[in-house]
Amino acid sequence: MTTTEALSTYREKISQLHALNHAMGALSYDGSTAAPVEAAEGRGKTLSYLSNCSYEIETSKELAEAADWLNAHKDELTPQDRREIEVFLRQKEYTASIPQEEYVAYTELLNTADAVWHQAKQDNDFPAFAPLVKEIFETNRRFARYYKPDQDPYDTQLGLFERGLTQEKTDAFFEALKARIVPLLKKVMAKPQVDDSFLRDKTFPVEIQRKFSDLLMELIRIDRNRCSIGETEHPFTTSFNKKDVRITTHYFDDNVISSMYSVIHEGGHALYELHSGDELEGTVLSGGVSTSIHESQSRFMENYVGRSRAFIELILPKMQALFPEQLAGITVEQMYRAVNKAEPSLIRTEADELTYALHILVRYEIEKEFFAGNITAEDLPRVWNEKYRAYLGVEVPDDRRGVLQDSHWSGGAVGYFPSYALGSAYGAQMLAKMRQTVDVEAAIRSGDLSPINDWLEDHVWRWGGLYDPVELLERAVGEAFDPKYFTDYLEEKFGAIYGC
Amino acid sequence: MTTTEALSTYREKISQLHALNHAMGALSYDGSTAAPVEAAEGRGKTLSYLSNCSYEIETSKELAEAADWLNAHKDELTPQDRREIEVFLRQKEYTASIPQEEYVAYTELLNTADAVWHQAKQDNDFPAFAPLVKEIFETNRRFARYYKPDQDPYDTQLGLFERGLTQEKTDAFFEALKARIVPLLKKVMAKPQVDDSFLRDKTFPVEIQRKFSDLLMELIRIDRNRCSIGETEHPFTTSFNKKDVRITTHYFDDNVISSMYSVIHEGGHALYELHSGDELEGTVLSGGVSTSIHESQSRFMENYVGRSRAFIELILPKMQALFPEQLAGITVEQMYRAVNKAEPSLIRTEADELTYALHILVRYEIEKEFFAGNITAEDLPRVWNEKYRAYLGVEVPDDRRGVLQDSHWSGGAVGYFPSYALGSAYGAQMLAKMRQTVDVEAAIRSGDLSPINDWLEDHVWRWGGLYDPVELLERAVGEAFDPKYFTDYLEEKFGAIYGC
Repeated sequence: MTTTEALSTYREKISQLHALNHAMGALSYDGSTAAPVEAAEGRGKTLSYLSNCSYEIETSKELAEAADWLNAHKDELTPQDRREIEVFLRQKEYTASIPQEEYVAYTELLNTADAVWHQAKQDNDFPAFAPLVKEIFETNRRFARYYKPDQDPYDTQLGLFERGLTQEKTDAFFEALKARIVPLLKKVMAKPQVDDSFLRDKTFPVEIQRKFSDLLMELIRIDRNRCSIGETEHPFTTSFNKKDVRITTHYFDDNVISSMYSVIHEGGHALYELHSGDELEGTVLSGGVSTSIHESQSRFMENYVGRSRAFIELILPKMQALFPEQLAGITVEQMYRAVNKAEPSLIRTEADELTYALHILVRYEIEKEFFAGNITAEDLPRVWNEKYRAYLGVEVPDDRRGVLQDSHWSGGAVGYFPSYALGSAYGAQMLAKMRQTVDVEAAIRSGDLSPINDWLEDHVWRWGGLYDPVELLERAVGEAFDPKYFTDYLEEKFGAIYGC
Repeated sequence: MTTTEALSTYREKISQLHALNHAMGALSYDGSTAAPVEAAEGRGKTLSYLSNCSYEIETSKELAEAADWLNAHKDELTPQDRREIEVFLRQKEYTASIPQEEYVAYTELLNTADAVWHQAKQDNDFPAFAPLVKEIFETNRRFARYYKPDQDPYDTQLGLFERGLTQEKTDAFFEALKARIVPLLKKVMAKPQVDDSFLRDKTFPVEIQRKFSDLLMELIRIDRNRCSIGETEHPFTTSFNKKDVRITTHYFDDNVISSMYSVIHEGGHALYELHSGDELEGTVLSGGVSTSIHESQSRFMENYVGRSRAFIELILPKMQALFPEQLAGITVEQMYRAVNKAEPSLIRTEADELTYALHILVRYEIEKEFFAGNITAEDLPRVWNEKYRAYLGVEVPDDRRGVLQDSHWSGGAVGYFPSYALGSAYGAQMLAKMRQTVDVEAAIRSGDLSPINDWLEDHVWRWGGLYDPVELLERAVGEAFDPKYFTDYLEEKFGAIYGC
């Protein structure tokens, strides 16, 4: 073998894996958006076949020989190719540690679980979902042990989403947040509450909300020739390549804010995928490097842009043009305060920035305890409700608004949740750094967000998976990660809104 | 090898082919419904990989050996298995006659052509589409020659859609139609024209038309857990298995009739796929047997049910409830005449039953002439416009409403069009037979279409590909195909409407 031959074999196999992933992704996207209910069964069979093909190629002798050759001849490779082989071998090591039948069965399990979760959420029927979430959690724990037999399986799991992340680091991170968020929230709650009733007693027709989504996507500079929007139970973003990204939202006709911030949030994810470097396209380095960095981009757009006073100044007149009766006479101050109303609540995706991390903490602790064997799937609703009472002081009235609310576990994303809180904190640190060279508020107010997008593209989006997440963050902000930027931001913002 | 082993190998390979077809179908459906414009490039690569996998499996030595073994041991097989092997071997013979690279390149070509056609139609830009339609026609002609070197390639092409069909038979069929339609149309045109202006000067909001589609699908008894509806430039039906069927429509807010009859037409296709026999599921015999039989079902629902006076009696009050202002004061007689207004026109999918076959004739003659080498792709607009002038007496104002109107050629369906006219005629013969045991009008008027659906299920839907199309038709109607049922129907119906 020569290095050229090895590269050629490697690239061919990667493009086959890419095609299979694309097909599986399209089937799943279709399953969430367009497929009839009973399509799940046939889709499961097809996904199982495709994932079997994918496993066989990823773990094939031919690909392993090519990748090992390249790894042994690193000095002949470009830095990008070197990095690519390193990242591929790491991914492959995980896949190859799992027995083939279990790998394929897991794909089919997730397909079934998605359908069952949708129905269970609709019916408020946790017992229907319990056996599936149990199997998903247990499978993830088993896979983590296959991969790193000598490591705590939940540490392994966290590391799959954010390389280098452990429970120790996550615990310390949440302790740092709690130490400042809990007293701040107490002070805020002692003040008179913001009035957002003008958003709650109106009807916002879905067909006009659809137009509003188009306007929002245009404002944050999403290329619609490369990104479409769909409608799903739970909003998400998926990407097949940098010219084919999808976001979804969920419209409620009694709540215009819910979809508005879903679109901006998912739009942040989409921008990251859409602006991955051209030179990375088709490689394992294309697209977002980790879920935390991904969430840093989505929550940057949603909160640091979308919930800023400047953005409300920009968007309110446009909203009033679309919803003239519903929003007549509303001022920027009223709207700014309404979209930043801080209040312990039930639903994560609707939570304000101040309480959001506590919703994540609940989920993180539950996963940790399950992986440690302290609780079982049957305990999930009880533990969920106890933790919501303890951290947020709210009573969960039903599982639909409790443990069944998110799609992550049914989708197999066990270990994902800390990404949201980490992402928020990464984003706050990026915002502080960005402010040194960009007049963020002026850009937003002008309606031309390109200085903001350009900074994010230069410091985050274009690099794809070229650097590990921690290194990428440090290169972007010029120092080590520090959650104080996030807690400083929260104190300043909510102190001003609530006068405390 | 034993017969059991051969059957097992055969079934495994067929299920793999089924999975690949499902994935390719889902990617194409997504491409027509949800994908952003620039997704076409990546989708092309993925489709090309999947079609390569499919080719390799379908033409593999392993599958060939198993199928040949089974074919040689027919006496050990059930009648269904025997039929399956026969149909599979016939399909495989076609695929295997095409060189692998050409087979894969054709998949990629169709993906590109679909995107180019959409854009060209929008821009009224035939020259942009010309090189693609040229390549598609030429590829089909080449493939037909690979498959049957000694046969006229357009006969081969027609036979791919309807086993046994030839130009001689199709010519005779169209002659029989022309002999009675042309004089009838002349008489009709001499009479005062039906007034449908009340349908033309109103706005029918798309969001209410969507509700109307749901109602129509319910009325014709489509199981929505197994069939969803999407929105595309050109309405179509696709089926991944009998629990996963999709129909699409195109809404125009100034024309409620267009989508109404698209939904009923595509609904007829969907019913055929949804009611294929359970015992055929997952085999090559599942679903519709040919495009003509398929069109007989779609046009049965659209015309013999949907354009009947009984159906208008049933549907008009429901339409008036959805569109109270737009349809205030309209009578059954007015609506019945309006949806049956006969008039030479430009757009096939909007054409009345009387002139419809002439639209098909134009397309059939063009394909025939191209295959015979008498015209080139560049000639298509000119020849199209000449034939519309000759057969329908209309001037085609632009290619958007001319040669670019249909999606068939960009989708590779060259030789498909005669199916529509044949299907209409098959359907009329089935209607005549059905009337012997079913009170069709009473069933429609009652709103419970099950006697009609039951007849179609018993005589057509459940049999899938168990019989060749001509045999299936003869079994259903108890005699040989005769287009006079269709022309009798037209004379009776339009004679009554126009008083001639």
